[in-house]
Order: sequence, then C-alpha cells, then structure tokens
Amino acid sequence: MTETALANLQNLYRIFTVPEAPDSTLGAVDHAIGENVADFLQKHIVALERSLEDIEKDFSASKIPEEPSFVSAYTDFVKQKLVAQSVHTAAPGFVGHMTSALPYFMLPLSRIMTALNQNLVKVETSKAFTPMERQVLAMLHHLIYAQKDSFYDQWIHDSQHALGAFCSGGTIANTTALWVARNKLCGPDGSFAGIAKEGFFKALQHLNSSGLAILVSRRAHYSLGKAVDLLGIGRDNLILVDTDVDNRIDMQALRMEYTQLCKRNIRPFALVGVAGTTETGHVDPLNEMADFAAEIGCHFHVDAAWGGPTLFSETHSHLLKGIERADSVTIDAHKQLYVPMGAGMVLFKDPHALSAIEHHANYILRHGSKDLGSHTLEGSRPGKAMLVHAGLSIIGRKGYGLLIDLGIEKAHKFAAMINDHQNFELITAPELNILTYRYSPAWLQDKVGQLSLEQCGEINSLLDLITQEVQKRQREAGKNFVSRTRLRSSRYHGEQISVFRSVLANPLTTTEILAEVLEEQCAIVKETEVQGLIDKIKQIIE
Amino acid sequence: MTETALANLQNLYRIFTVPEAPDSTLGAVDHAIGENVADFLQKHIVALERSLEDIEKDFSASKIPEEPSFVSAYTDFVKQKLVAQSVHTAAPGFVGHMTSALPYFMLPLSRIMTALNQNLVKVETSKAFTPMERQVLAMLHHLIYAQKDSFYDQWIHDSQHALGAFCSGGTIANTTALWVARNKLCGPDGSFAGIAKEGFFKALQHLNSSGLAILVSRRAHYSLGKAVDLLGIGRDNLILVDTDVDNRIDMQALRMEYTQLCKRNIRPFALVGVAGTTETGHVDPLNEMADFAAEIGCHFHVDAAWGGPTLFSETHSHLLKGIERADSVTIDAHKQLYVPMGAGMVLFKDPHALSAIEHHANYILRHGSKDLGSHTLEGSRPGKAMLVHAGLSIIGRKGYGLLIDLGIEKAHKFAAMINDHQNFELITAPELNILTYRYSPAWLQDKVGQLSLEQCGEINSLLDLITQEVQKRQREAGKNFVSRTRLRSSRYHGEQISVFRSVLANPLTTTEILAEVLEEQCAIVKETEVQGLIDKIKQIIE
Repeated sequence: MTETALANLQNLYRIFTVPEAPDSTLGAVDHAIGENVADFLQKHIVALERSLEDIEKDFSASKIPEEPSFVSAYTDFVKQKLVAQSVHTAAPGFVGHMTSALPYFMLPLSRIMTALNQNLVKVETSKAFTPMERQVLAMLHHLIYAQKDSFYDQWIHDSQHALGAFCSGGTIANTTALWVARNKLCGPDGSFAGIAKEGFFKALQHLNSSGLAILVSRRAHYSLGKAVDLLGIGRDNLILVDTDVDNRIDMQALRMEYTQLCKRNIRPFALVGVAGTTETGHVDPLNEMADFAAEIGCHFHVDAAWGGPTLFSETHSHLLKGIERADSVTIDAHKQLYVPMGAGMVLFKDPHALSAIEHHANYILRHGSKDLGSHTLEGSRPGKAMLVHAGLSIIGRKGYGLLIDLGIEKAHKFAAMINDHQNFELITAPELNILTYRYSPAWLQDKVGQLSLEQCGEINSLLDLITQEVQKRQREAGKNFVSRTRLRSSRYHGEQISVFRSVLANPLTTTEILAEVLEEQCAIVKETEVQGLIDKIKQIIE
Repeated sequence: MTETALANLQNLYRIFTVPEAPDSTLGAVDHAIGENVADFLQKHIVALERSLEDIEKDFSASKIPEEPSFVSAYTDFVKQKLVAQSVHTAAPGFVGHMTSALPYFMLPLSRIMTALNQNLVKVETSKAFTPMERQVLAMLHHLIYAQKDSFYDQWIHDSQHALGAFCSGGTIANTTALWVARNKLCGPDGSFAGIAKEGFFKALQHLNSSGLAILVSRRAHYSLGKAVDLLGIGRDNLILVDTDVDNRIDMQALRMEYTQLCKRNIRPFALVGVAGTTETGHVDPLNEMADFAAEIGCHFHVDAAWGGPTLFSETHSHLLKGIERADSVTIDAHKQLYVPMGAGMVLFKDPHALSAIEHHANYILRHGSKDLGSHTLEGSRPGKAMLVHAGLSIIGRKGYGLLIDLGIEKAHKFAAMINDHQNFELITAPELNILTYRYSPAWLQDKVGQLSLEQCGEINSLLDLITQEVQKRQREAGKNFVSRTRLRSSRYHGEQISVFRSVLANPLTTTEILAEVLEEQCAIVKETEVQGLIDKIKQIIE
C-alpha cells in the first residue's frame, strides 16, 4: 500500500469514528442549532433573496468530486449555499403550505433516531422499534376506531396481522389503502388465484367487468391520480365527482356517476372521502358516504392526511363524524402531528385487511416473524414512528386538541379579517384551518352583480394575474408566504379562478402577522406593474 | 379561558420555541450523542437482552395519553426502553445486514436537515434543496452513464425533465422504474390514450396481448414481487429465471422463458439485471442482458441498490460492465453510500423517460415549474439528498472507491478463513462483499460424496436446524450478528439449504472480529441443545 493510500485509509476510519470537535465549523453550527433552533433559523434563513436560476449555478457540477474534502469546508458551503437559500418553513409568516414549526424536542430525538439508524423492515435491525411502531399504529387506530381493549390486546403485536402501515408519507399511505381495496375485491375465488398472483387482465375476466374505478370528489389530492395510474386502473377511471358550494362531495352527483359506471360495466372498488381537502380544508359528508359505500358494497377509504388530528379536539372532532366507519384512513404525521418531514400512516379497521398485500422473502419477513415489512409497500424504512410516539406521549391528546382548536379559531379570525377588509374577497371560508381568498377591491366587488358574463370573465383573468403576481412577489420578499391554487367558484358560474391559499397550523402565527400578510399584499398591489392590471380592470368597468 | 387552559397554552408555545436546557436529561443524551456517537452506542446498546415478547409489554397501551408529559420523563423512557433495546446496527460485529456504521458528519448534517424541515415536492418549500437534489441525481447519473458535459448542462436543471427520482428506498426506486417501463410500452398510440389514462385492461386489448411480464433471475429482491402486484402485472408474471452455479442469471434459461412467454402471448416489458443480489452479492452478466433486451426490444432495468457504488472502485467497477446500457438503475444511498436510513434513487438514461409518469396539480407541480414532485411516486419528501451531497463531497469518488475495495478484500479474507476452518463450509463465495456459509464439520464434509440422496436430505434438514439455532443464539447474545437465508445449492442437487449470510460493508469490522464470529458460532454448537442435532447427524452417517 502506498503512503497516500495509507493516509487515505486512516482518514476514512476517522470519519467513521471521530466525532466533530466542538470548535469546528460543523461543531459550531451544530451547537447553534442545538442551543436555539428558532433563533438560528430566523437569523439564517429568510436571508438574501436569489433567483432559482442563480442558485442553480452553485449546483451545476455533474461530476462527483475525485478527492475527499474537509468537513469544515463543506459545512461552510452548506451554510452559505444551502441553509441560507432554503425556505424557512417554520416561520410564523409562512402560512401557505402544510409545513409548520416543530416542537423543539423533535430535534434531539431525531438525532437519536438517526444515530441508532434502525431499519424497521425487520426485527433483526429494529428490535424494540418494532413493538414501538406497532403501538403507534394501535394508538392512531384507537383514535379513529376506538375499539375495545380486548381488540387491541389481541391484535397490537400479532405477528400475522397489522393494524396499519407506517409510510414515508400520505401518497404511499393512500396507495397502500387502494392497493388493499383492489386486491380485496379481486381476491382468490374458486379457480381464480387473485389479482396479486394472476394480474389485472385475468381479474377483470373473472369479475366479468370492463374496468375498475374509484369515486372521489373533485377536491381529491393529486396522489390519487398517481395511485390509479400505478395500480393499472387508469386516470380515466378516477371519477372526480362534483362538489357542492361548500367543497364537499355532492351525494346526488355521486349516485349519478355510480349509475353511469354500472351502465358501462365498470366496477367501483373504492369510494374515497376527504377529511380536510388539500386546497380548502373541507370535510366530505363521511356518514352519508359510509352509507353509500355499504349500499354499493365497496371499500370506503378516508384521506385524512391533513384533517385526521381534528379527532383530538373535543370541540371539533364532530366534523369527522363517520370516519370510524371507514375501512381505511390515511393520516400524515408530518402535518398536524408536528413530526419532521417523511411520516405518514394508513390505518385499517379490519386487522386482516393488510393480508391482501402480504409478502415474504427467505432472508427476512419469514412466515411467523413479527417483521413489519411483510405488510408495507416500502422496504427498508427509518424509525420515524419514534417521533410520533414522542409527540403523542409528550403533547398528549389534550395538547394536540388545543393545537387543533387554536388553528381553527385562527382561521376563523383570519376569515373575518378578510371579510372586513375592503380589498379582499374570501373565496372559501374555513371549516378546519385552511381558507382561500383573493385581492378584489370593494369598488369591484360592489359591481360584480351588474357585469356581463364576458366582462366577468375578462376581469377574473386580470384578477388571476394579480393573484399570481402578488403571491410571487410576496414569496420572493421572504417575509410572509401564502400559496396559490385554482378553484372552480360557484359564485362565478363555476369558472376556475386563482386564489391565495392559507394554512393556519403554526402555533406561532399571530393575528398581527396575519394582518401583516394582508398589508404586504396591498402594498405589492400598489407597485407599478400590478397597478397596471388594476387599471385595466377599471377600464372594463367604466 | 380557564386558568388551566391558559397554562396549557403557554406550555404549548414553549415546546415550539424554547430549546432543551443543556443540563436536562434530553440535553444530556443529546450532548452525549454529539460528543461521541460510536462510544455512546457501544455503551448503551448491546445491553440487556430481553425477548421481544417481554419488550412488547412496554409498548402495549393502545390509548393516546390524555395529559401532556415532561420531556425529561419521556427521555428516560426512551433511554431505558427504546435505545437500550434497539439494535446496534453500527457495531463492527454486526455483519448480517446491509446497515453499517455512519460517517460521524452525517449526524450534525442530519440535524440541520431536520431543523430546516424542507419538503422536496416543490420549490416553494425547498428552494436551494431542489437544485441540490437535481445535482445529486446528475452526479449519480454521471457515475453510471458518463454522458458528455453538454448533456448535463442541458438536462440537470431542466424543468420539464428529470434524470431520476430520489425515493425513500430501493423498493420505491424499483417500482418507479418498472412503472415507467410499463407506461412506456403501453404509451399513447393512435386512438389509445395510454395505460396511465385508460388502464391495464384497455392497454392489453390495444397491444393484443394476454398479459405483461418481467424477466429476472431467481435471486431478485422481493421488492419486485410487490411491484408486479402493485402494477397489476401479477406475481405469476414475474418470471424468475434459473441461475448458474455462480448465482447469475442463466442466459439460456432466460431465452427459454422468453420463448414460453411469447407462445402464451404474454409480453415481457422489462428485463431486470441484479448488480449485487441481496442474498449472495452476485452480479448478473449485464452486457449479455443488455444485448438480449435490445434484441427483444424491452426496457432494461438494473437493480444496483446494493452493488451500484462498486462503480466508484477502479479495481472492481469492471464487475458492473454493461450497467451503462441499462435504461434505468436503482441505487440505495442508505446502503453503500453510508447515508442514514431512508434514501434511494432511480436514474434513467433518457431524460424523457420519467415523462411517462408525469403528473400535475393546481396548487403545486404546475406545468413549467421546477417542482421535483411532478416526476416522483412519492409526494412530500424530506431533504435527504443533502446527505448524499455531503457524502459525495466529503468522501469523494476515491474515498468511496477505497471503502468498496476494503469491503471486497475483507469478504475474500473471510471466505478464506471459512475455507480454512475445519467446521465451516463456504456456500457462496463473494463476488462483491457478501458471502454465505454454514456450520458443517470436516468429518461430515469428507463423507458427503458417499451419502445416499436420502441421507443427504436428512442431514441437510438437521444442518438447517443448526444454522437457524446458532444464528438465533448468536443474535440474542448481542455481540456479533450474521443473518440467515435459504438458497438452492447446486452442490446439493438444487436442494434449498439454510445458510449464514454475511455482509462486509462496515469499515470498522476487522478480521479479528470475523474470527470471533466463527469462534462464537463454534462455541454455540457445543451447547447441549445444538450438540444434540450434531449427534443425530453422526447417527445417520454411522
């Protein structure tokens, strides 16, 4: 071995054994984060605004560096190029997406989780983490289904069954639920060995159907589109049912769509209710949907990725009434359980449900083992359930209930502020803690009733441009942030309009900050380019 | 608001803002981990051995606690019940699975990643993390495909395309590749709008086929079984081709299986090569497979979840020759890139490939945006790519190359030790850094040639029990760990036998430790219950 090779080798051992010195750059950054996360992030993040195109220049090399480099040099790079140019998702003025501040204890606990580097696919690489994850799933199962103690005593640690699956997020959770539903409908039957074994084509031949379909409201999360593609259903067979004025699935329209499917010999195998739509936060009429699912004999899944934790609140849990009748429910822990990114769950009412997708291997997941991996879509997975366990233990049911109450209350206050403000129009009122609105001055709103359909369309197009421009400029200013989306509005003849979308889940967001959000938006409208659009609207009206 | 409610509220704000005091329990644990990870884990983990059933008692409550609890109390629980009962996957004697020691810098960097809590699905919640992840994908693409600079200049940050997808692990990576392959074969064509839109049934009608199939060797990872189930292909159509004596796909058997499929009017849409099988670490003849895929016109995917990083090694990269001809390649970063659990990638040779699964939504992933989420199976995702970026930057190509060389060298040494040892039988020799073996004393090995088929079968069953028992007892002793699996052995008439499986990827594992692993196994065999099995073998032979 040459001298250089030997030196390299020694350095290699070092990086696996020697911790960072406290006075190194990485040590200092690490220390700063440990000492005061909120403060560190506030100081370091909403910094210099650079365009994405400009930032890309720092990440344009496509070759892996040949030589090793010092940790300290890399840390400087991270601080200046990555941390300083990331998005401060925990800032109280960041009210546009579903990422919020984290409880401080999540950080040291995450570090323990990372250091232990358990792999939850099997007991041999996770030991106590396996029963811990099973307990987390049981606790969430209990939150939704509230079965008797004897039920949980029987199933919680049963090696052949699982009350749910811990996933990297809501998309995998929803996909798992629909996978189970598809395989249940097309399960083994007589000489047919089931869709898992024989595939889609033979399953349809066996069912004597021309296709399978899923029924859900127009407000469904886009993950369902991916799921039907993946599962071989086809996007055409994701039936998006119209909603009522309150963004909830229209039960009559649902019945009509169902009748249409039957006529075409297409078999709906899952009805999906949304408990907290991504765009407006509304909850479908879950009880009525459960009735209908029972009537037509299909799997009832509730996508409660966002709204699920509403069940913690004594005041608001009634909004989700009927969820306990769902066959499966998705809840994201990285949303309203305030766990870091990458933690979703799907719970199944029936402990046998996940058998429809059970799988084994020779080196792990052997029959009779308690390996969690035999009932999950994913394989190797980190011990993120530990952070849910921590949240449930430390914050408790009442603590989470209070957080939910705070968010919904704040959303109602913000809605009132928008209604009272002469320059804004509330588009969808909050049912949970999400609302949408747009800039639309009082002098315009007063005249809407008198405008022709054509005028209305032209004005909406201009307002769309204003919404887009204001949202972009506010985001780029780096102080406050709302997101935007496009919604069909019943007030405007079902026309799609652009709206600001605000998510009120960060407990650090105050009404003062919300007032600031609106003020800043008004100030942006006064900037020349945006004012030009306002002038055009005036010309149409006059 | 009552006084209690107010107090609760103040506590709630505290947990989102006030960091843990350095002298608290959590602070102390956190500090200990920061100071010296390896030492902390060694002191705290391979501790008291308790049975899983016993541990389950600590995780048996199914109700979420009503009241909040102190972080310090919870931390005590974590230390005693979770950390002390987890698996020390980083221990140098843990040579049974693919989880190894982590470079120390991964911990503080992980903490930064967690604190920033970016969501990579969209630029609005990730900013600089988006180009950073694109760069990581480009670097791995370059490692495999080594296209010209102009290629990367054109595609690396192109909003309409992606060179790959970052995933939670290899299962999602493989599934994404096969999803793309399926959708490519069944893409829009004339009046047929494609499988993504119209579904599986119409796709097969359009192709005039009775089914789709995937061809792969018997040593395929079990994730492919899940993928064919999920994608509607059916497990019957995952064609497991026989392997040669070296655990590589038998090209003649492959041709025969292909002919059979054609006769049954089943269309193979993907041929999968394995670069480092999970159980034995062997590499399929990738060049020959690429030829065959070209000949029959199907997608060629290489599952290099384990073996991909062999490309870093100047000495051994030739083993993967032909991988550059694959249409897609899976590489797991949480395996031989030494990144914490939960990081996989799939790379596509053609930047247009991922368009086959492209999707959009109104509130994010809009057309023309650079949001990474429009080309991933998953939705919200953490910024794990940062840790790959760190590894590539700090360890560098040469550093990773050295780690690979070390592992392969060590595996060959271990194989020699097993061959030289009178009580062990090497079952599969290492090509990369994985090998399998079993306990089988010299006096037995000497007689194998003279045994009847029946005797041989009986003895193998007893040896299987010994392997299982020794593996279990060694694992439970908590000092060293090998895994076990079942393999068809050509030496024993294709009979399935149980074997120890050893993975040599931890740079801290020394040959002394490997000698200890064997000695400990010999000592376990001397324990009464196992010795009883040995006696039974003696009776058969005499």
